[in-house]
Amino acid sequence: MAPFILHRQLTVEWGQCDPAGIVFNSRFFEMFDISTWMLFEAALGVTAHQLAETFGIIGIPLVDARANFLKPAKFGDVVEIASRVTEFRRSSFDVEHRLTIGGELAVDGAETRVWTARDKDNPDKIGGVVIPSDVIARFG
Amino acid sequence: MAPFILHRQLTVEWGQCDPAGIVFNSRFFEMFDISTWMLFEAALGVTAHQLAETFGIIGIPLVDARANFLKPAKFGDVVEIASRVTEFRRSSFDVEHRLTIGGELAVDGAETRVWTARDKDNPDKIGGVVIPSDVIARFG
Amino acid sequence: MAPFILHRQLTVEWGQCDPAGIVFNSRFFEMFDISTWMLFEAALGVTAHQLAETFGIIGIPLVDARANFLKPAKFGDVVEIASRVTEFRRSSFDVEHRLTIGGELAVDGAETRVWTARDKDNPDKIGGVVIPSDVIARFG
Amino acid sequence: MAPFILHRQLTVEWGQCDPAGIVFNSRFFEMFDISTWMLFEAALGVTAHQLAETFGIIGIPLVDARANFLKPAKFGDVVEIASRVTEFRRSSFDVEHRLTIGGELAVDGAETRVWTARDKDNPDKIGGVVIPSDVIARFG
Repeated sequence: MAPFILHRQLTVEWGQCDPAGIVFNSRFFEMFDISTWMLFEAALGVTAHQLAETFGIIGIPLVDARANFLKPAKFGDVVEIASRVTEFRRSSFDVEHRLTIGGELAVDGAETRVWTARDKDNPDKIGGVVIPSDVIARFG
Repeated sequence: MAPFILHRQLTVEWGQCDPAGIVFNSRFFEMFDISTWMLFEAALGVTAHQLAETFGIIGIPLVDARANFLKPAKFGDVVEIASRVTEFRRSSFDVEHRLTIGGELAVDGAETRVWTARDKDNPDKIGGVVIPSDVIARFG
Repeated sequence: MAPFILHRQLTVEWGQCDPAGIVFNSRFFEMFDISTWMLFEAALGVTAHQLAETFGIIGIPLVDARANFLKPAKFGDVVEIASRVTEFRRSSFDVEHRLTIGGELAVDGAETRVWTARDKDNPDKIGGVVIPSDVIARFG
Repeated sequence: MAPFILHRQLTVEWGQCDPAGIVFNSRFFEMFDISTWMLFEAALGVTAHQLAETFGIIGIPLVDARANFLKPAKFGDVVEIASRVTEFRRSSFDVEHRLTIGGELAVDGAETRVWTARDKDNPDKIGGVVIPSDVIARFG
């Protein structure tokens, strides 16, 4: 089964660019964060703000983020972001974000996140819990 | 009694500037928001995140923000922001933020905020409440 | 002739919200800035980064921005922004941005911008120049 | 010779936090970017916006950024960032950013940047050039 990939397109905004006229690095991490929310919405069929409630978790916090900047994105550029989960482990998973401009890879991003819930016996304690198999199945 | 004024200095960052090499407008509103928190911290002697708890409010939400951009602020510029409450009303108040560069006014900002609490009888309802006179007294 | 209005829809992102779970004020000014670029693109039929070149200007810098926050916008909310030029003067103009959620006005924003060019005799000097009547005509 | 380390302290701002009440991930990359500029300013004794001119380069663009999020940073937290160059290569170098709260490591960041100039024979071409040994010497 082919993996579930979320594709979205956006146009680079003036306010996302720095004095070199190119997207400032932190803005790509904003874009990737949103893509992950949209990927989970699309794959699981719930809106992002229902995600926690639906699955009895408090969220999917980020524990690691990386990006390789291969080509700059300029004001007005149309960029495409393709996002998919590359690996599910017991309670954590990796998301890959490939940002292309005119078909060429411009930024290669990756996130590691944790499927996180409150401890049943000690609600003050939060931590990773087992990702349900039917959640994983939705991503192909 | 002279009004309480919060002065702070900051250096314009690369990531705050747009392709014209000058601070992007939304960034000034970020600066003003922080200045207001710092002004209240300094005047009331509590940290910003203790403010709500100390005074039995849920916060001081912004209902109106305005800025006049007179001169651009460039990467590396040292800017000074002077912030003060210009008027206290029953439950709302105005904050003025004057941002200067080398003594010249560059941005003239203003906020209107509301001293906001939950209704005692109906906790789902929130709204403006009377600003305590000892709070007002602290601002001179 | 009916005025040209740019409508766009967006979904509030996690990273745009503050600890109160609502869109942080500076983010609305980002949204309005982009809406203005899109409004000019749509009305004039040139991409935003061709605007300066096409009309012999250096840009349309913001000299004044204002917003009234009537209702909060929360993570996941679908907001609609309707933007139009409300007045053209000799070299400056006003843009109105009405942000609604479910048909109710949530933020009422306004910008004043200047049609700005370099002085022909002194390229170091920049300032407002007469807005061409065919530009104005495109906005209805 | 001990490596040159830039230490700076900042207080987490309301607008840097997300609905979970903690600093949104992209904000750490903003903080790290600024720390790198400040590190180079301090080590080389030139202001950030004189850096390019002084050394005949166009800048030090980021080609790779990474961060490990170990502990959240909350609104009002005082964070300390210690930044240093961990390796200089021919034309690229690595910067490490350790963000601590109360002495505990909260975010472990790293950047790879390139000492970049225009080609003398072909000014349209830009690329990495040899980092001068006296620049490297300043970092210990």
